[in-house]
Amino acid sequence: MGISVSDYLISRLADLGVEEFFGLPGDYNFNIISSVENNKKTNWIGCTNELNAGYAADGYARIKGYGALITTYGVGELSAMNAIAGSMSEFVPVVKITGVPETKYINQNTLIHHNLNTPDYQAFIKAYSNVVETAAFLNENNAKEEIDRVLNVLINTKKPVYIAIPVDICNKIIDDTYNVEVQKSDENNLNEAVNSALELIENSQNPVILADVMVKKFCAKEQLYEFVRKTNYPVTTFLMSKDLINDEEFANYLGTYTGKNGNLNAYRTVNNSGCPIFIGAVISDINTHGFDLKFNPDDFINIQSDFTVVKNKMYKNVLMKDILEILAKKVTNKFIGQCDYDYFYTKVEPSENKINSEYFYYKLQEFLHEGDNLVLETGLINLAGAKLKIKKNISVNNQILWGSIGWATGAALGVDLADKNARTILVTGEGSHQLSAQEISTMMRNNLKPVIFVINNGGYTIERLLSKDPMDKFNDIAGWNYSKLPYVFGENVYSISVSNDIELDEAFKTIEKEQQNKMCYIEMHFDMFELPELAKESMNNLKLSKL
Amino acid sequence: MGISVSDYLISRLADLGVEEFFGLPGDYNFNIISSVENNKKTNWIGCTNELNAGYAADGYARIKGYGALITTYGVGELSAMNAIAGSMSEFVPVVKITGVPETKYINQNTLIHHNLNTPDYQAFIKAYSNVVETAAFLNENNAKEEIDRVLNVLINTKKPVYIAIPVDICNKIIDDTYNVEVQKSDENNLNEAVNSALELIENSQNPVILADVMVKKFCAKEQLYEFVRKTNYPVTTFLMSKDLINDEEFANYLGTYTGKNGNLNAYRTVNNSGCPIFIGAVISDINTHGFDLKFNPDDFINIQSDFTVVKNKMYKNVLMKDILEILAKKVTNKFIGQCDYDYFYTKVEPSENKINSEYFYYKLQEFLHEGDNLVLETGLINLAGAKLKIKKNISVNNQILWGSIGWATGAALGVDLADKNARTILVTGEGSHQLSAQEISTMMRNNLKPVIFVINNGGYTIERLLSKDPMDKFNDIAGWNYSKLPYVFGENVYSISVSNDIELDEAFKTIEKEQQNKMCYIEMHFDMFELPELAKESMNNLKLSKL
Repeated sequence: MGISVSDYLISRLADLGVEEFFGLPGDYNFNIISSVENNKKTNWIGCTNELNAGYAADGYARIKGYGALITTYGVGELSAMNAIAGSMSEFVPVVKITGVPETKYINQNTLIHHNLNTPDYQAFIKAYSNVVETAAFLNENNAKEEIDRVLNVLINTKKPVYIAIPVDICNKIIDDTYNVEVQKSDENNLNEAVNSALELIENSQNPVILADVMVKKFCAKEQLYEFVRKTNYPVTTFLMSKDLINDEEFANYLGTYTGKNGNLNAYRTVNNSGCPIFIGAVISDINTHGFDLKFNPDDFINIQSDFTVVKNKMYKNVLMKDILEILAKKVTNKFIGQCDYDYFYTKVEPSENKINSEYFYYKLQEFLHEGDNLVLETGLINLAGAKLKIKKNISVNNQILWGSIGWATGAALGVDLADKNARTILVTGEGSHQLSAQEISTMMRNNLKPVIFVINNGGYTIERLLSKDPMDKFNDIAGWNYSKLPYVFGENVYSISVSNDIELDEAFKTIEKEQQNKMCYIEMHFDMFELPELAKESMNNLKLSKL
Repeated sequence: MGISVSDYLISRLADLGVEEFFGLPGDYNFNIISSVENNKKTNWIGCTNELNAGYAADGYARIKGYGALITTYGVGELSAMNAIAGSMSEFVPVVKITGVPETKYINQNTLIHHNLNTPDYQAFIKAYSNVVETAAFLNENNAKEEIDRVLNVLINTKKPVYIAIPVDICNKIIDDTYNVEVQKSDENNLNEAVNSALELIENSQNPVILADVMVKKFCAKEQLYEFVRKTNYPVTTFLMSKDLINDEEFANYLGTYTGKNGNLNAYRTVNNSGCPIFIGAVISDINTHGFDLKFNPDDFINIQSDFTVVKNKMYKNVLMKDILEILAKKVTNKFIGQCDYDYFYTKVEPSENKINSEYFYYKLQEFLHEGDNLVLETGLINLAGAKLKIKKNISVNNQILWGSIGWATGAALGVDLADKNARTILVTGEGSHQLSAQEISTMMRNNLKPVIFVINNGGYTIERLLSKDPMDKFNDIAGWNYSKLPYVFGENVYSISVSNDIELDEAFKTIEKEQQNKMCYIEMHFDMFELPELAKESMNNLKLSKL
C-alpha cells in the first residue's frame, strides 16, 4: 500500500510507542506536523523553544522508549543540538526530524531564508552528524530506504538519529511495509563469552555486581534481575541508574555507589571483590564518583550492550540480554551471606531557621511513592539524590554524563506526558531553571500537574564550589521572584515560596491536597552553601576538572 | 612581553572595542571569564542561557563592530549554535569562545562530563566548523598563532570565528604583540573594475543605486555617501539595510525597496534602470521581496565586500571601500532630476476598537528620535517596519536572512549594552518572545531601560498566513499574561497590557515620562490577522516556500 513519506515516518514512530511529538512549527515543516496531527495515535506538543522541546523529547523517550523532535531548517534545528547531543551521550533514542526547503531550491542552491549567506544545504546535517548515530537527507529516490535504515539504527543502538525532509518530499508516495532488522548475538562469541565469564565467576569467593544504566536502555532488566536472584550476589548501581533496582527488591542490594564517602558498604564490597561484574556500566567521572574504583579496571567482567569483555578479551556481537540470560541459567556459585545497607535519609527535626537540606531530602524521600517519576537536575541535586530511598516502580531521571543545566525542566514536560497517570516530581536549582523556565507554560497548557521544587540558593552553587573564589561574581545570577512565574502562564497552580523547615512542611501538606487538581510549584530558599553531607563529601571526592 | 593565553585573547578583543562579554560560566571556562573580569576595559555579562547570550553578542556586534560569547564545552556551546549560525549568515563578527577540559583529559580521551559516551574531543569544533568562517583548537604550541589567525579572519571577513581553549592552556604565557593583517585591494583588478564600471555608468541614461547591508558591515558607508552625493543617482535600500540611509539624507533617496507592492516608486526606478548599481546587496528571498527584480541579474554592477562584477566579469580582491572611493572621484554622469518619495506611515485617528496596526506603526514612527536603536523581530514586524520613516542616526537591527524567532529579545540586550546612552526599542511578537523571554531579567539586572513592545496576536500569525489552514492548531501557542512577566524579574518597570488605540496612546505618553527611570514593557493585544496593508501585500508577494 502507498503512503506519503511524512505519514510513513510518523506511523513507524507511532508503532514504536511515540504518541507525543515535540517541537515548533516553521514554514518548512508544516507537512510533517500535519502528519502528526492527522495520525489518530499521535499528538503535536508545541513547545516554547526548540532546546526545551529537545529536552522534552529526551525525557519522553526515557519513559516511553523512544521520542521525537520536529523543528524547521537551520534556525530551529540548531537551537536543539545540545538536547540531541545529550540524548546521544546518554543513549536516549530520539529522532530529530527537520523540515527543509523544497528540492528545487536545494538543487538551484537558492538563497532563501534560514540559510547561510552562501547557501549550503548540507551544512546543518553535517553539523548534526557529529552528535547523532546516523543522519539521512531524504530525496525522491532514497526516502523509504533511508527512513527504514535510520529507524533500524535507532532501535538497535538506542542512540539519536537525524532525518532531513524537503517540503516536497513529504508528499511522495512510498511503500507502507517495514521490517525491523533486530540485531542478534553471534552464537560462537556468545558461548565463548559465557564460558569465559563462568570460569571466572565460579572460581571467585566474592563476586559483586555493578549494574548500570545500559541495562535499562537495552531492556535487559528482567535478565539482570534473574541473574541477581539466582546468585544472590551483592549488587550496587551507579548514579545514572539510581532507579534500576529499588530498595526493597533484593536482600543484598547495596544501594547507589558513591565512592569512598557516603555509602561505604557499597564502596568496600565493590573494591574488595575479586570478581566485579560490570553490567551496562558507564565509567565516567561523576557516575563513578571520580573514577574511584580500586581494582584493576582490566581485571573484571564487563558486559555491555553488544559486547562483553572478560579478562581483557573482547567478545563482539554478544547482546547483554542474551549473555545475562544464559549466565543466570548456568551459574552455580551463590552468595550465602547477607549485606547490610541502610544508607538513606533519616528523620531530622524541622527548625524555624533556614531550610536544612537534610530535612528537605528526607521529606522528599517520604513524599515519593510507588509509580512516581522523579526528574533531578544536573549538579548537586543528583549528588544529594544518591541517598534517596527508592520504592518500587519509581523512575529517577537524570543527566549525569552530559550534564546540561536546564535539561530537567524541559525533560519533566516529556516525562509527564509519557506517563500521564503517574506523578512527575521535578527538583531543580534556580540557576538551572532559568535556562528553560518558560517550558512550565507548556505543562500548564497541557493541563499537566507536576510537583516542582526549585532550590533557590543565590546562584550557581556547584560552580562556586569548583571556582577558585566561591564568591566570584560570575557565579551570581539574576534574582527572580520564582513563585510569581507560574502565574504568568495561568492560574491553575499552587505556587509558594518557603524559607524554613516549618513552611516547607506546610507546603508538603498542601501539595498532598492540591496535586490532583493543579500544578504545585515550590520555591525553597536555601543558604548559599546549604548541602546535605553526602553532596559535600561527593564534591570533595569528585576529581572534576579544576582551574 | 609575556601574557597568559586567555588574557591575550580578551585584550585583543578589548582593542577591537569589545567591552562586554556574554555567556554562562561552567567548570571548563572559569579561567576565561576571570580574564574578562580582570581586564579593566571589559565586563562579564552573565545571561540566562547560551542561545540568548549568543543573540546578545550578535546584537552587541551589530552596534559596536565586534562581539564575543563565552560558554563551556559541549552543553553550553551547542545551545548557542543557532545564534552563531545567525551571525554567520548575516556577517556579524562574533567570536565564539569555548572552555574545554584540560589537555591531559583530551590526550587520554577520558570520559568526563559534557562528553559523548565515547569521547571525541573534536566533535563539537567539527560541528561548529559548519557555521563559522574558521575555527581553532588551541594547544601549547599553536595558541598565539591561532588566536592571531582567527582574529585576522574575523576582522577581514566580518564573520564569526570559533576558539576552543583547554583549561590549562588559558594560563600558558605567550607573546603580547599582535599585528592585524588587513586585507588590501589588488591594484590591477581594482583599476580594471573601476574602468569597466565607469564605462557602463557613464553611458547610461538612468543609473540607480541599490545599497544594502554589506556597506555597513564593511565600513564603506562614507564612501557610499560620497558616491551618492557626487552622482545624485536615485538610491534605494533593502530590508536588511533599513537604516543605511536616513530619510532626510539625500534628495533622491527612494526609501526601502518592497517589491511590486508598497513602495512603488523604488520598484519602478530600479526595474526601469538600464544600469542598476548594487552595492553590498544580499539577494535573498525576503530581502528582495521575493526576488522581484525584473532586469537580468547578470546585467548589472555588483559591488561586494571584496569583489566586483561588471557585465558578468568578476574582479577579485577589490574592496568595496576602495572601488567606491575611486568611482566617486572619477564619475561625471550626474542625475539632474528629482525623485518623489513619501512612503511612510501617516496619521490615523485612534479608535476605541481593538488596536489598528497602522496606528501602532504610525505612533512608533513618531516616537523614534535621533540616536535610537530599534530592534525588530523576524517576521511580519520587519515587513511592516519597511515603511517606517528613519531619522538621522537611528539604527534598525533585524535578522532578515537567518530569521530566527526569539533573536530580537536577546539581541536587544546586546544592543542596549553596546550603546548605553541611547534608547533601545524592541518590537517583537509574542510567539517569538516566548523563545527567549527570560533574557529580560538580564536587562533588568543590568539596570537597562529598553522600551519593549510585545504584539500579542494569539499565535504564530506569519505561519498562519503560510499554512494551508490558518487556524491549524500547531500555530497556536500558550497564552501568557505578558505584562506580569517583568515583575518576576524585578520591580523597576512600567508594564502594561493595552487593547485599543486609546490605551496605546496613553501608554506612549507614560513611556515618555517613565523611560528615563525604568524599563517600559507594553503588551499590545492585536486581532489575529491585524496587519498593516504593506505587510499583507508583502506576504502575498513573497514567494516563500509553500506546502
